[in-house]
Amino acid sequence: MKKIIVQKFGGTSVGSPERIKAVADICKKTIQREACELVVVVSAMGHTTDELCELMSQITQSPVPREYDMLLSSGEQVSTSLLSMALSSVGLDGHSMLGWQAGIKTSGVHRKAKIENVDTSYISSILSKGKIPVVAGFQGYAENKEVTTLGRSGSDTSAVALAVALGAERCDIYTDVDAVHTTDPRIVKNTGSLKLITYDEMLELASLGARVLHPRSVEIARNYNMPMRVRSSWKPENEGTLVVKNIDGRNETMIEGQKSVRGVALDKKHARLSILGVPDEPGIAYKIFGQLASKGISIDIIIQCASQDGIAELDFTVDLDDADKAQTELEKIAKEINAQSTILDKSIVKVSAVGAGMIDQPGVAAKMFKALADKKINIHMISTSEIRISCIVDEKDGELAVQTIHDAFNLDTVTE
Amino acid sequence: MKKIIVQKFGGTSVGSPERIKAVADICKKTIQREACELVVVVSAMGHTTDELCELMSQITQSPVPREYDMLLSSGEQVSTSLLSMALSSVGLDGHSMLGWQAGIKTSGVHRKAKIENVDTSYISSILSKGKIPVVAGFQGYAENKEVTTLGRSGSDTSAVALAVALGAERCDIYTDVDAVHTTDPRIVKNTGSLKLITYDEMLELASLGARVLHPRSVEIARNYNMPMRVRSSWKPENEGTLVVKNIDGRNETMIEGQKSVRGVALDKKHARLSILGVPDEPGIAYKIFGQLASKGISIDIIIQCASQDGIAELDFTVDLDDADKAQTELEKIAKEINAQSTILDKSIVKVSAVGAGMIDQPGVAAKMFKALADKKINIHMISTSEIRISCIVDEKDGELAVQTIHDAFNLDTVTE
Repeated sequence: MKKIIVQKFGGTSVGSPERIKAVADICKKTIQREACELVVVVSAMGHTTDELCELMSQITQSPVPREYDMLLSSGEQVSTSLLSMALSSVGLDGHSMLGWQAGIKTSGVHRKAKIENVDTSYISSILSKGKIPVVAGFQGYAENKEVTTLGRSGSDTSAVALAVALGAERCDIYTDVDAVHTTDPRIVKNTGSLKLITYDEMLELASLGARVLHPRSVEIARNYNMPMRVRSSWKPENEGTLVVKNIDGRNETMIEGQKSVRGVALDKKHARLSILGVPDEPGIAYKIFGQLASKGISIDIIIQCASQDGIAELDFTVDLDDADKAQTELEKIAKEINAQSTILDKSIVKVSAVGAGMIDQPGVAAKMFKALADKKINIHMISTSEIRISCIVDEKDGELAVQTIHDAFNLDTVTE
Repeated sequence: MKKIIVQKFGGTSVGSPERIKAVADICKKTIQREACELVVVVSAMGHTTDELCELMSQITQSPVPREYDMLLSSGEQVSTSLLSMALSSVGLDGHSMLGWQAGIKTSGVHRKAKIENVDTSYISSILSKGKIPVVAGFQGYAENKEVTTLGRSGSDTSAVALAVALGAERCDIYTDVDAVHTTDPRIVKNTGSLKLITYDEMLELASLGARVLHPRSVEIARNYNMPMRVRSSWKPENEGTLVVKNIDGRNETMIEGQKSVRGVALDKKHARLSILGVPDEPGIAYKIFGQLASKGISIDIIIQCASQDGIAELDFTVDLDDADKAQTELEKIAKEINAQSTILDKSIVKVSAVGAGMIDQPGVAAKMFKALADKKINIHMISTSEIRISCIVDEKDGELAVQTIHDAFNLDTVTE
């Protein structure tokens, strides 16, 4: 049996008939180069989703989720069939299939369904005929014939889930960047590009704002140890970035050297809340964060400063979208516990340095803080994990902070 | 159990968000007026099909039929979900469904599948919840999860088939004309409009070029005696035209009176072929028409003029699209049977007077021929059925012939 490779093409990669023909060429070259069986997953063509939403907005501002899914999932139906036709034109035998045909069974929650399992029997039967399954990403089906969609970045998730279910050798994510970069190229000019990255590093970078892969698909890949490759459909000859479990074995010199930091991320979707004059009693933190959690508000970083006179200050960050709701709730809590006041600051961002080798490099944090201090950038809060150091800074300092950290760790020279 | 009414809305009726909202209003009024359960069938929005075909043409000129069906069937997915949203906005509970969900099982021939049966269990379960099934017309599914389309006028066919399967009281076809007219309003200004018409009359008018209903849907309605109503989605208060089996009982005076002719149709899709100097021997007609039939060429009218010296002339008409192919074939045959020559004339049209009461009115044909003669219109061929008289005339005389017949039978005064 030949190995299977799953290739996923995003909306801009199939954004026009020209692009769709280019994708068919990529598929053909992959089969020649890898001597593999190919399964292709596609998103809707570039602007399709926007156009459908525009039509919808002229009819209703609050669509029934079920009908929203039915509407949006038409987009991939167009791109899968057009790509199948384009594959025929280059002598291959494409076979489009929608979520329900491909056996992508999901939960029944419309607009954000989760893949429960993939029945690969239909895809396998098509592969065994020498055809190329062209599967609609982003969509599946639930109980009672319901068409569902997977929510943000759903097509990446479809591709990885299919790769896992089919026992594929690799899942290639073709997108409009040529690799995972050391930071956002819109902020820093001389970014390095990474040949290898671990799932954990990718997750930290992704959830911190480097928008190449959505954490959801990376998590599935990590859980099933499925290698992913991020590459460009405009420069398919580039190998892009391979996302794997562990790169230590392959790359010891780098880990031992300076490149403990491998990426810098900027996340603007945060707000900072402070509650001042909090009585420093047992159970107070639970009262505050338990009550916020019961309203569905997630907390990111928390800092507690206990003062000497039994009065504490608590600082924490929440999603920018939840900020006003959290502030309202915090006001109520402040009254209940006799705290003095609350402050909401929406003008902050989170800057993070990420690298799996960081844990063995004690000087990393100090080097980062010094670099920021040299540029007079004030750090409000700090949070760390085994592979990440994050600082909350003023929004106006965000891009400079990214550039500064990038420079400090010489990331422009990263090519591994 | 409430009665069920099936309403079908064509592409122009759902051509924009505004029109879709208007359709939702029509649905609401129907339920109020008829106290019925409603099943709605929709086509793709106006220009969707053209846009999809334009995209397709940039990729291939010869699409795989399977992928063509996948592509085109996305159109109704958009219109059904948008209409369901619009129904919610007027307080109704729309529930879109695609061909495979609605249980529309077809043959496996892509691009021109035939409906084999309709499993109404899903639609019935949705109806029993007080919801309105909004079914994608034009599409179904075949063995092995294949998405199929029904070919030209497929949505009318879907609607009538659903009405039959559900035991509906009536199938309303909403379109952009307000009724079936006595002839094409683009040719004759003062057309009459018919309140009632029989399936047979409708079939003759439809297949002869009055493009309101495709014969296929009318044939299904006739076979199962399902009343159809043609009405305008721009003037939904008009009752339009009811298509039924028999109108004699309801309308005796009219049948006994002058209105034996109820419609005039012009059909431009014909060509005339002649083979001259044919030896007048037994089996010659079989040889000619058998050979043409074996090439898939359908013959409409045939006239044989036997001359006195044992040499005959055969005239017949074929579809304009088949004309050149038929001519080539006829040349071969002419050589084989030692005929003198063949002539192809593409500049002819067929003008027909249609009416179920015609059979009891011996003077109809004579009156029609006299009217045409008075206008110096030359008749090349004549063909009749129980409810139709057709004349082949020169293309240049076609519209005048329609007007002349329409005037001769005072069809501008028809309102029944």
